[in-house]
Amino acid sequence: MSQAERSIREKKPVVTIIEETKPSETSPTIVLGLPDVGLVGIIAAGHLIESLKMTEVGYIDSDRFAPIVILHNGQIKNPYRIYQTEGMILIISEIPTQPKLVNDLSRAIVDYSEAKKAKLIIGLGGVPIPNRTSIASPEVFAVNLGEKANSMIKKAEIKPLEEGILVGPYASILWECKKRNIPVISLLAQSFPDYPDPGAAAAVIESLSKIIGKKIDTKALLESAEEIRVKTRDLMKQTGKTMQEMGKAREYEIPPLYM
Amino acid sequence: MSQAERSIREKKPVVTIIEETKPSETSPTIVLGLPDVGLVGIIAAGHLIESLKMTEVGYIDSDRFAPIVILHNGQIKNPYRIYQTEGMILIISEIPTQPKLVNDLSRAIVDYSEAKKAKLIIGLGGVPIPNRTSIASPEVFAVNLGEKANSMIKKAEIKPLEEGILVGPYASILWECKKRNIPVISLLAQSFPDYPDPGAAAAVIESLSKIIGKKIDTKALLESAEEIRVKTRDLMKQTGKTMQEMGKAREYEIPPLYM
Amino acid sequence: MSQAERSIREKKPVVTIIEETKPSETSPTIVLGLPDVGLVGIIAAGHLIESLKMTEVGYIDSDRFAPIVILHNGQIKNPYRIYQTEGMILIISEIPTQPKLVNDLSRAIVDYSEAKKAKLIIGLGGVPIPNRTSIASPEVFAVNLGEKANSMIKKAEIKPLEEGILVGPYASILWECKKRNIPVISLLAQSFPDYPDPGAAAAVIESLSKIIGKKIDTKALLESAEEIRVKTRDLMKQTGKTMQEMGKAREYEIPPLYM
Amino acid sequence: MSQAERSIREKKPVVTIIEETKPSETSPTIVLGLPDVGLVGIIAAGHLIESLKMTEVGYIDSDRFAPIVILHNGQIKNPYRIYQTEGMILIISEIPTQPKLVNDLSRAIVDYSEAKKAKLIIGLGGVPIPNRTSIASPEVFAVNLGEKANSMIKKAEIKPLEEGILVGPYASILWECKKRNIPVISLLAQSFPDYPDPGAAAAVIESLSKIIGKKIDTKALLESAEEIRVKTRDLMKQTGKTMQEMGKAREYEIPPLYM
Amino acid sequence: MSQAERSIREKKPVVTIIEETKPSETSPTIVLGLPDVGLVGIIAAGHLIESLKMTEVGYIDSDRFAPIVILHNGQIKNPYRIYQTEGMILIISEIPTQPKLVNDLSRAIVDYSEAKKAKLIIGLGGVPIPNRTSIASPEVFAVNLGEKANSMIKKAEIKPLEEGILVGPYASILWECKKRNIPVISLLAQSFPDYPDPGAAAAVIESLSKIIGKKIDTKALLESAEEIRVKTRDLMKQTGKTMQEMGKAREYEIPPLYM
Repeated sequence: MSQAERSIREKKPVVTIIEETKPSETSPTIVLGLPDVGLVGIIAAGHLIESLKMTEVGYIDSDRFAPIVILHNGQIKNPYRIYQTEGMILIISEIPTQPKLVNDLSRAIVDYSEAKKAKLIIGLGGVPIPNRTSIASPEVFAVNLGEKANSMIKKAEIKPLEEGILVGPYASILWECKKRNIPVISLLAQSFPDYPDPGAAAAVIESLSKIIGKKIDTKALLESAEEIRVKTRDLMKQTGKTMQEMGKAREYEIPPLYM
Repeated sequence: MSQAERSIREKKPVVTIIEETKPSETSPTIVLGLPDVGLVGIIAAGHLIESLKMTEVGYIDSDRFAPIVILHNGQIKNPYRIYQTEGMILIISEIPTQPKLVNDLSRAIVDYSEAKKAKLIIGLGGVPIPNRTSIASPEVFAVNLGEKANSMIKKAEIKPLEEGILVGPYASILWECKKRNIPVISLLAQSFPDYPDPGAAAAVIESLSKIIGKKIDTKALLESAEEIRVKTRDLMKQTGKTMQEMGKAREYEIPPLYM
Repeated sequence: MSQAERSIREKKPVVTIIEETKPSETSPTIVLGLPDVGLVGIIAAGHLIESLKMTEVGYIDSDRFAPIVILHNGQIKNPYRIYQTEGMILIISEIPTQPKLVNDLSRAIVDYSEAKKAKLIIGLGGVPIPNRTSIASPEVFAVNLGEKANSMIKKAEIKPLEEGILVGPYASILWECKKRNIPVISLLAQSFPDYPDPGAAAAVIESLSKIIGKKIDTKALLESAEEIRVKTRDLMKQTGKTMQEMGKAREYEIPPLYM
Repeated sequence: MSQAERSIREKKPVVTIIEETKPSETSPTIVLGLPDVGLVGIIAAGHLIESLKMTEVGYIDSDRFAPIVILHNGQIKNPYRIYQTEGMILIISEIPTQPKLVNDLSRAIVDYSEAKKAKLIIGLGGVPIPNRTSIASPEVFAVNLGEKANSMIKKAEIKPLEEGILVGPYASILWECKKRNIPVISLLAQSFPDYPDPGAAAAVIESLSKIIGKKIDTKALLESAEEIRVKTRDLMKQTGKTMQEMGKAREYEIPPLYM
Repeated sequence: MSQAERSIREKKPVVTIIEETKPSETSPTIVLGLPDVGLVGIIAAGHLIESLKMTEVGYIDSDRFAPIVILHNGQIKNPYRIYQTEGMILIISEIPTQPKLVNDLSRAIVDYSEAKKAKLIIGLGGVPIPNRTSIASPEVFAVNLGEKANSMIKKAEIKPLEEGILVGPYASILWECKKRNIPVISLLAQSFPDYPDPGAAAAVIESLSKIIGKKIDTKALLESAEEIRVKTRDLMKQTGKTMQEMGKAREYEIPPLYM
């Protein structure tokens, strides 16, 4: 973190990442599944946790978060959780964050990545397209930063997203990384804007798979697509509302400056 | 309270528990009756206080609480009160807490439980079901934390609630307990979502009875069910509004991550 | 003020009572006329000031109060004023206080009463009844606190209000007094909920008269009832709106806990 | 400023008066033209500046004011400006102040008046009447404070406003002056409540003229009345909205206490 | 910055300008393209960056800005950016700033200009006219401050805007410059109020060209006018909404004071 960066911080962090188990990984790839268009990131992250048998190692905490816990297999879970597997730490949020805490959340994630000496941050998300129903295999685009990330994208033959406006946690994480020179990639699959999109989640996992060079099967994910759509309908509504508050509607249009 | 826990606290407590009489109980079970689905917790707590002839020992105070007092038998009462009987301290709130103070209230309750060296915290509440009218005996589910609580649940033959999202004071109390390793159980009876449900309150008391191994008669409660429903109609409305503000509608659906 | 009380205070008072003339009374009875149901307290206080020829001795001040002054006989008056007569200090507020300042106002009043070594605080107000038009002489109920207040009520043959929920400045004043062990009585006359009620004000004065053992004529008050109703219509509307914001609608129902 | 006064101040001023040119006047009369009923104060102040050829000497500044500047003759002007002429300093605000800054603005004005050892503060405004169209010459009433101001009013044969409620900057200025013993007069002409009223402005100037003993011609003002009404229509709307937020609708009714 | 200026500042800056590359220019002209009427400033700034082949040297940062980044040519960009070319530094904002941060943004820009010893600040914007469609060549008006700026305007034969009210970042920048004696010009082209107006942007560039004595071709801008209008439609909506919140509707009417 540069001197300039430090000086504009107004107060101590209100969002903190807590490790319950010290992750064994050093210099890991940090993968993010945050609520976004089509819930692509969350659905993909859920599949990664299961298929890679990742172990839970921590959570994200804040006095200002809403009073919400998750129950799974009778266990009490924080909606923001940290998992690990060989070479990878995954951060998932099962609920959307209040807009006014988004910058704080992003900084906590980048602070943590920096402390873990992460070699790369990869955010999983979606880019909305109107005619999603007529597309069998959603295409995945990358937003990336830094030489290293760039060559990875090329090698994995993922098209860069050239023009657009990004709004929300991935946007502020990208900017924090840029300020601190941390390599970062956002993988964005073509997705329904307002419906949970397991197909887009499968597509984004396949791109991730190519980048990190690890085979991840998405068959199970696609088979339970209908079930996932039903389960995540309410979260999709909540997420849609939060995205609108942040002006998400503006996202992915051509930025006005460049003509 | 761990070092990590302590460090993320932003400021001194704005909610405090005041003991007017020092409770004689050491290492008590702490039972909570807070406003929730079907007012199950409040109705059950009211019955416990009467049938166990509990004595009032204190209240909860905050400069930021709404200016409200309760009159009972001509006595002025705090809407947040602390009672005790042999082996048990009960905390009841007769009004819903403003959403932005819920985390503060939860921490005050867990701080107090820790200071009393509580052997267990048991929250009483409801889980909404659409077809409540067609159910004669509402079933009770448990959310619990820690080995000890788990074996108690099993012994009492109460089914665990396996999957769901919890929102409100019980959610943040569960999480605080998890962070500090304090055994905690939430007993949740099947309940009307929007109507006061004395039947569900009776069911939850029977489960509590099994766990703490103390016979508590619920006949009087069931006989005055109609009267209770009339008396609590307005509180139910207020509570429903507050729950909605906290996104309570999302509660008890299947969490999206686990498929 | 107890240690506990002191420790939960968050910051220095934002509401202060200023004495312009040092009242000659020591250990006075403090009478309160604050905006409430039917404006009973204000109308009664206004009559007391005139008929007892009380002298103005101070006002209540806060940087956060709305920018409002009262004109009377060409004199500029604070809407919150302090008056005295033999053995009595009266505090009147001619405008409703913003809900978020109510706790601060109440504490300022109780701090002041404590500093004056008040022997008793008596709040004048109303309790709404639906069929007020069919009642010729509104009954007055008392909410009281402490042995001394209790025996005064009995001697004056005023019925206690047994069950209910009180919301607003009188509620937080009652609680502050309870915490500090200061004797306090609220006299509440049956009143129109939403119309200024000079008849209820007369009833409350007669009860006050019995308690303090001083004859106060209410004939003039009853004769100018119609005029008062016209003059106070707008203040009633403002007061009604503020009471609703504080959840006043919930007041005076049977509290749910006690069945 | 008294000790009591000082002690209730919460923080340093957020509104400050800046002198660009040191006014030559010592112990001046301070005249105020602030947005109010019928824009009487602003229209009158504008006419005073022109007809007395007053010179601009400063402005009012605050980090919290809205980002607004005025253009006049190609010059950039602060909407809050200070002018002077022989024996007089005039403060004009061409925009309404946000309600939550009104107390701060008033204190800044009274602080400044005190620092200048002002011999008198005179606020120019309107009192709304429903049948304004049927009145050829609006009457002017005075609200005043202090012996000296009182004898000036009498000498100028201006009727005092006996009963009423005042809301807004003039209200808090009157109260600040009362607390600090500074002589102050508010001149209020009968005015349209919601239309700019140059006729009322002319009337208020004639009263001011009598008080300060200086002939001020209002012919030009009355001749351009139609033009002024058109120009100030939008400001009137803005001002009306701000007055409503402060509860201005309550103003000038008979105060309820005094019957 | 004067002593007076300094003393009214409430806290440290929450908005900061960060230079990634130290600009080689000393004492530059600072040109501003901020969201405004018809997006004139942004469209003009975009054209300047391209046609003058300006290089990016920094950005504006704040913990309180919305979480938004821009993508261009696959590069992640801050929506607030700093560019330079020979003798000129350009500041562009591709998104509207929340009204409550406008004063902070303006001060950051003027602080930066002062630190760079800027010889002149030139803001590019629009002045709305109802009959824009019937005007082939929009006229450009100047608001300016200081002798030097004034003679530049005259030499360039640009008409001054004589009367009006300005609202938004240009307004507070003009006032900051006036307080600190920094020469500043706002060039405002006749523009559609609610549609992006490339024609007005071309007009404003031609005026800028005359002032700084550098030929800037606008042919390419006019040829892609239709494309620009489509691309900027959404930003125009956002900007319109923000302008309304700041009371922008009041802008450019005749100020009420001067008749």
